[in-house]
Amino acid sequence: MDTRAVATRARAAARTLGSAPAVSRDAALRHLSALLAEREEALLAANRADLGRADAEGLAAPLRARLALSPAKLATLREGIDALLDGGDPLGRPLRRTELDAGLILTQVTSPLGLLLIIFESRPDAVIQIGSLALRSGNGVLLKGGSEASASNRALVGCLRDALSAAGLDPDAAVNVEGREAVAGLLALDDCVDLVIPRGSGELVRRIQSSTRIPVLGHAEGVCHLYLDAAADPARATRLAVDGKCDYPAACNATEALLVHRDFLPELAGVGSALRSRGVTLRADARALPLLPGAQPATEADRGHEYGDLTLAVFTVDSLDEAIDFIHAHGSGHTDAICTRDADAAAAFLARVDSASVFHDASTRFADGYRYGLGAEVGISTGRIHARGPVGVDGLLTTRWLLSGQGQCAGDYKAGGRRFTHRKLPV
Amino acid sequence: MDTRAVATRARAAARTLGSAPAVSRDAALRHLSALLAEREEALLAANRADLGRADAEGLAAPLRARLALSPAKLATLREGIDALLDGGDPLGRPLRRTELDAGLILTQVTSPLGLLLIIFESRPDAVIQIGSLALRSGNGVLLKGGSEASASNRALVGCLRDALSAAGLDPDAAVNVEGREAVAGLLALDDCVDLVIPRGSGELVRRIQSSTRIPVLGHAEGVCHLYLDAAADPARATRLAVDGKCDYPAACNATEALLVHRDFLPELAGVGSALRSRGVTLRADARALPLLPGAQPATEADRGHEYGDLTLAVFTVDSLDEAIDFIHAHGSGHTDAICTRDADAAAAFLARVDSASVFHDASTRFADGYRYGLGAEVGISTGRIHARGPVGVDGLLTTRWLLSGQGQCAGDYKAGGRRFTHRKLPV
Repeated sequence: MDTRAVATRARAAARTLGSAPAVSRDAALRHLSALLAEREEALLAANRADLGRADAEGLAAPLRARLALSPAKLATLREGIDALLDGGDPLGRPLRRTELDAGLILTQVTSPLGLLLIIFESRPDAVIQIGSLALRSGNGVLLKGGSEASASNRALVGCLRDALSAAGLDPDAAVNVEGREAVAGLLALDDCVDLVIPRGSGELVRRIQSSTRIPVLGHAEGVCHLYLDAAADPARATRLAVDGKCDYPAACNATEALLVHRDFLPELAGVGSALRSRGVTLRADARALPLLPGAQPATEADRGHEYGDLTLAVFTVDSLDEAIDFIHAHGSGHTDAICTRDADAAAAFLARVDSASVFHDASTRFADGYRYGLGAEVGISTGRIHARGPVGVDGLLTTRWLLSGQGQCAGDYKAGGRRFTHRKLPV
Repeated sequence: MDTRAVATRARAAARTLGSAPAVSRDAALRHLSALLAEREEALLAANRADLGRADAEGLAAPLRARLALSPAKLATLREGIDALLDGGDPLGRPLRRTELDAGLILTQVTSPLGLLLIIFESRPDAVIQIGSLALRSGNGVLLKGGSEASASNRALVGCLRDALSAAGLDPDAAVNVEGREAVAGLLALDDCVDLVIPRGSGELVRRIQSSTRIPVLGHAEGVCHLYLDAAADPARATRLAVDGKCDYPAACNATEALLVHRDFLPELAGVGSALRSRGVTLRADARALPLLPGAQPATEADRGHEYGDLTLAVFTVDSLDEAIDFIHAHGSGHTDAICTRDADAAAAFLARVDSASVFHDASTRFADGYRYGLGAEVGISTGRIHARGPVGVDGLLTTRWLLSGQGQCAGDYKAGGRRFTHRKLPV
């Protein structure tokens, strides 16, 4: 694969896609939905080929479940496309209009980023989820899936490309990429690729971040804390700890550590016993340990550790300030929550904790684009530049500044000349 | 300088600044304005020390002019601070509010980025312009100016720090940085520094971009095109070409190349003669050359070249499409303009040219934060991620997602359980 040639073609096709009329992108999305229905048998057959190989190679059961397509999963993908259509075209939306002077009007409008490189593992549904978001936002997309899903990915990217063609758009705006060498080649093309979105393990994300100059959107770690304040309601504290840890322990928004105010320690045994009954292994500091039968002593390495399984760390703090400092020192800036009946403590926590998502009396597991009502999600960003937290269509947009004049020159506005009006206009 | 210790302290001080009440940041800005007045004599004396050294070392006249402070420049800086105060506090502004379910309210609010590293040359006014923007947006700031302005920079950063202290804020949110080794050390701290903003030559920007993993906001090049369409008004074309090239040839938004539709060639001699009378050297392709007495033949190296002086390239195109392709192939995505009386051509150009600023019948020189009415400007970004084009306070902000609940758990919303309402609320 000549990665330079592929990326250059995709970049050019993306420009056509991004500046095409909204009706063309709408049509492509409708074609995509129709193709997923028409080709259901072929898509499932391609997926069976991948599953057959996976079974022969003894792929672990959870990975196999993620690899498998089904009529239900395809129907969900089509619903997602319908939701994107309902949301309307996000491009060319005026965000700000200013009269600089009579007959000199500045408009800031939404525009696509350009060309995205998506690197994902196992789940072939991601091709359509992210491909349709890219199409909706007018971005070209290079899709590199895991080799275990190669037949499924090829068939699904084929649907994307045929949907583009059917709408009169350039199919090269969506490209299936295979092979590690191709990825390495693409990661070097910072003049063609505008954003890399890795979806997978922290290790994958870190490897990509350290091997490219292209901006990377995502998160390598999700070390989420639940702080049980002095004024925490014990029943709520228990529910939030159990849901945060047990609902889906491998997720990036799972709770990895409880911070317990010393005044809450008398209630900690109840929280601990509920967690233990759900199979959670606790690793507690010296003050919490005696209250948690069966817990192991926590070490320095448990601070800021992402377990990704049914293990939970417990640390004692003397104050809200200490809890916030602990989160800033050891958290990953993903999602952190306070449980308290004290409105002032909740307000201080929400104002001061410097994480992408900050919650009061809600499970850290809510940090998710679907739950936030953003529709589809390309990922969750712990970066602070561009998009932060769960990222939907808005995170795939940038802006352009359009200025319409009548021959005005900057020299006309020198000292003693014309003056800018800078009048804010309705958008 | 222990760069790790300095950056860590500044990062912590920035968190205090960003979560302090708006009245504290307002007070610091007012103190800063007052200090610039109170200390005028001391500031000018420090600046005289820098100027004395500059004269002894024979600094070039334009650089000396940029280095010099004056009562008028200090007054302008104070006006800028007043304008920031008028704009109000930009932090904690709700951008989106959603009811996820009864009693479960999500709010996306503006937040500071964190800690900025500003690297600038010569102009000491930048300390206050950027320092006050950082203070307004709740960001900490490490300021590394040129060594030729070291006494002025120290005195001005002293004003920033004292203004913070006077408002009860941590002065370590603003730090004067000296020496190349310190910069190299700070550029390695991608866990402490959130954004680097280099202000200076393209060479400076490229050097920084290639030596850090921290996001860099700015532009290495400004290769701006003016396309003279078949339907361009000859008088406007002349005015826009002369202003774009001659108003300030060293600026990044100066016009570097004319693209001339073949049908406009009969009018080109008039444009060329106006440019020549202003001392512009033209470098023209084979079709334009015979129409431009005194012009030199353009070579391949003139495509996409930033002259930064009174040199202008002229290339002939056969169509609007060719002009747009030329801009995409050779431009820097900074600012490109069309001159035409044809509304359809203007609309197509504005819709399709993929640059930060795209103009119709206006000089490329308008691409500037002050002219756009953004107030102060930290720079102009040709990047597509985060902020694009002229960047004011908004470009120094990110967001956080705040969720307030009553003990809700994600497990409650599994299939067959509670359903999200995702009701949009007024902000």
